[in-house]
Amino acid sequence: MVDLHDNNPPHQVVIVGGGFGGLYAAKALAKANVNVTLIDKRNFHLFQPLLYQVATGALSPADISSPLRSVLSKSKNTKVLLGEVNDIDPTTQKVMVGNQSVPYDTLIVATGAKHSYFGKDSWETFAPGLKTVEDAIEMRRRIFMAFEAAEKETDAAKRRALLTFVIVGGGPTGVELAGAIAELATKTLKEDFRNIDTSEARVLLLEGLDRILPPFAPELSQEAQASLESLGVDVQTKTLVTNIENDIVTIKQGEEVKTIASKTVLWAAGVKASAMGKVLIERTGVESDRAGRVIVEPDLSIKGHPNIFVVGDLANFAHQNGKPLPGVAPVAMQEGEYVAKLVQKRLKGETLPQFNYVDRGSLAMVGQHSAVVDLGFIKLKGFFAWFFWLFVHIYFLIEFDNKLVVMIQWLWSYFTRNRGARLITGKETIAPVPIESNGHYPTVKTRQPLNV
Amino acid sequence: MVDLHDNNPPHQVVIVGGGFGGLYAAKALAKANVNVTLIDKRNFHLFQPLLYQVATGALSPADISSPLRSVLSKSKNTKVLLGEVNDIDPTTQKVMVGNQSVPYDTLIVATGAKHSYFGKDSWETFAPGLKTVEDAIEMRRRIFMAFEAAEKETDAAKRRALLTFVIVGGGPTGVELAGAIAELATKTLKEDFRNIDTSEARVLLLEGLDRILPPFAPELSQEAQASLESLGVDVQTKTLVTNIENDIVTIKQGEEVKTIASKTVLWAAGVKASAMGKVLIERTGVESDRAGRVIVEPDLSIKGHPNIFVVGDLANFAHQNGKPLPGVAPVAMQEGEYVAKLVQKRLKGETLPQFNYVDRGSLAMVGQHSAVVDLGFIKLKGFFAWFFWLFVHIYFLIEFDNKLVVMIQWLWSYFTRNRGARLITGKETIAPVPIESNGHYPTVKTRQPLNV
Repeated sequence: MVDLHDNNPPHQVVIVGGGFGGLYAAKALAKANVNVTLIDKRNFHLFQPLLYQVATGALSPADISSPLRSVLSKSKNTKVLLGEVNDIDPTTQKVMVGNQSVPYDTLIVATGAKHSYFGKDSWETFAPGLKTVEDAIEMRRRIFMAFEAAEKETDAAKRRALLTFVIVGGGPTGVELAGAIAELATKTLKEDFRNIDTSEARVLLLEGLDRILPPFAPELSQEAQASLESLGVDVQTKTLVTNIENDIVTIKQGEEVKTIASKTVLWAAGVKASAMGKVLIERTGVESDRAGRVIVEPDLSIKGHPNIFVVGDLANFAHQNGKPLPGVAPVAMQEGEYVAKLVQKRLKGETLPQFNYVDRGSLAMVGQHSAVVDLGFIKLKGFFAWFFWLFVHIYFLIEFDNKLVVMIQWLWSYFTRNRGARLITGKETIAPVPIESNGHYPTVKTRQPLNV
Repeated sequence: MVDLHDNNPPHQVVIVGGGFGGLYAAKALAKANVNVTLIDKRNFHLFQPLLYQVATGALSPADISSPLRSVLSKSKNTKVLLGEVNDIDPTTQKVMVGNQSVPYDTLIVATGAKHSYFGKDSWETFAPGLKTVEDAIEMRRRIFMAFEAAEKETDAAKRRALLTFVIVGGGPTGVELAGAIAELATKTLKEDFRNIDTSEARVLLLEGLDRILPPFAPELSQEAQASLESLGVDVQTKTLVTNIENDIVTIKQGEEVKTIASKTVLWAAGVKASAMGKVLIERTGVESDRAGRVIVEPDLSIKGHPNIFVVGDLANFAHQNGKPLPGVAPVAMQEGEYVAKLVQKRLKGETLPQFNYVDRGSLAMVGQHSAVVDLGFIKLKGFFAWFFWLFVHIYFLIEFDNKLVVMIQWLWSYFTRNRGARLITGKETIAPVPIESNGHYPTVKTRQPLNV
């Protein structure tokens, strides 16, 4: 039998998106008396918090990806469907996957977010973001290509632009990218080139607010900035990016306008709702915020549709302290688990109090041997924070897949400072041609929105 | 200084290609009083014997790749140049890299081979070969996409074609691919699907000669065939492929002509010389064989050009027992090291006896716990051969890069039967669309010849 749901099904739960929100909902329903269909565009769950490690050549994509089918192979009530949901019909209770319709009793939408250029979509060509494996491979290609091209460049100004790395956005991803690139330049690649001194590379981290890592306590923001600066990162706060074009970044600091010539600009700033957001809004009339995120009810359902839930980065949940919960993995996990629990309660005719996010704290890596950890009741920094960061990430990483190897690989690369995964692959494998011919790198065509 | 050779250079050796031949030549020249420039199109050395492990989701590309710069970072007389050589001028003794010329006193060409469809280049669309990282990623995509598409396919005949894997060529690569795919279907993926039984997948290995693994002793060929058959592989010898088109493979067995419907045909048959072969022939008038390989002199130089050498798969060396040496890694390594030694001798006004290949034996993996090893004086099979195979490969793999992690990862996946690296990435990430719309998968545009 090949139809996508049983012929006399129990309650049919359809989950769209295999990120943290969707996967944790599916796992929490594994033992429930429901049929679950998890639909994702990709065949793997991506552990996004470590994507910057792929972008900087420390880990391989597979190290931070788990095949959805093997994660859920023990959940006999769960089917994985590889495909893209292009429409939803709340009236007949179906989602469309290509030309095939999948019926649901309860729908959980967890398609996440993609990066946003605040309407300046042309910037993406020059400043790719980091959401998918393809994004990471492309970033890795640009970073290592820049050093290769600099090695061959005879013009001093061009060489300087090739050795200037600009990261836009001082959140965790920006901080982690900046730290990793600085270490690449000053340590990993130091002995590898003959014509350039890689440690002369400039790494700039640009943040619009008055400090990096705004979600953290101010002293940790200062600590993180100090660690980055000790690695040679030039941290610029209160700095607005007003244009990115032809390898020139234009910034505004107060009244002052400056330009930075850089061949490698990386985007770690804004995000917006994934495409499913629009579909939901059109089909259900639900309201959304400026970023296109869906406004959800206290139980994470959407107004007027108690059997449609939105969890994770696509959801705007503002019933806890007035402001929306941040788009981080722990929020998505807890939301997914809450909805799974609520669905089971409802089937028993019971209910649940509203969703309540338990913030267990924030972590950010700052270079290979330093991190900041803010658990509220305690704040860690430096090596111990780094070790804690490592432990927490590996813990979640190996939870549904045997990624012990990742920890070993990582400790290895930590102690040897070696980054073995610095392959330049994909469309453009030879630097000088694209750079010298049209002045910048081609865009990747393979970029995908997060999950579905 | 950014020019590619010193201004008062000692003897300038230019090596084109960072495969086994080129890299071993470069390493053997590390301490010599010469300047070395290694030119490669890619920034990494690829450990090709394990490429099939990437194609079948057991290893990541980075696990079997070593950045050329880090491999050679300690060789202070050696520069790595990332670029493609498009011409050679033996008169002025220069190679052209793009629009930039690199002078040489001694030139070592080691650009290897690419796969050959015996003039039937249209077959490549349906039956990709396995030479580059991109090839492996594309094969991996096709293999895992076939299972995904079968899971959704309602037509029994189409589903059977999706679950039929045809490997053309019974050499080591074909044998290793067939064994790995059979194990994927019967073990790794067994629990992951709900609509199909992956163990019903058909894996066919087609070989033109009367036995697989012709380089091995006949009893080992039989042993390998028996192991493959115990894994469920259908081994067909004395079988000629006469056509591959629209997912139909036409074969000829004696007078009998048959067709096989398969969505996944993998090419492990012929190879031909890489593009540099033609350039050499045009510029030096050297002779080549039917596969386009360059006929070399007893010292691996080419006739009339004692300072131009060809090593590895691009060379046809027939001065040992009349027939050309096989295109395997050990031959390339020994040839590279011989030329490095000869260059140093010549600088001292000395010479060397002709090149003499020392055959230390052949190895082939047959499934995850069985292999065949032919050392001439001893023949191994089964688990012990498998372990020997693993040891030898890891030994060479970690020789110039710390790939201990690979061994761990591997033993791990051997004991858990898990293959974590089965991401479907790249251009087509959703199976049903390309398959159902035009009946076959699109070709990859990213295929690259081996090395330069």
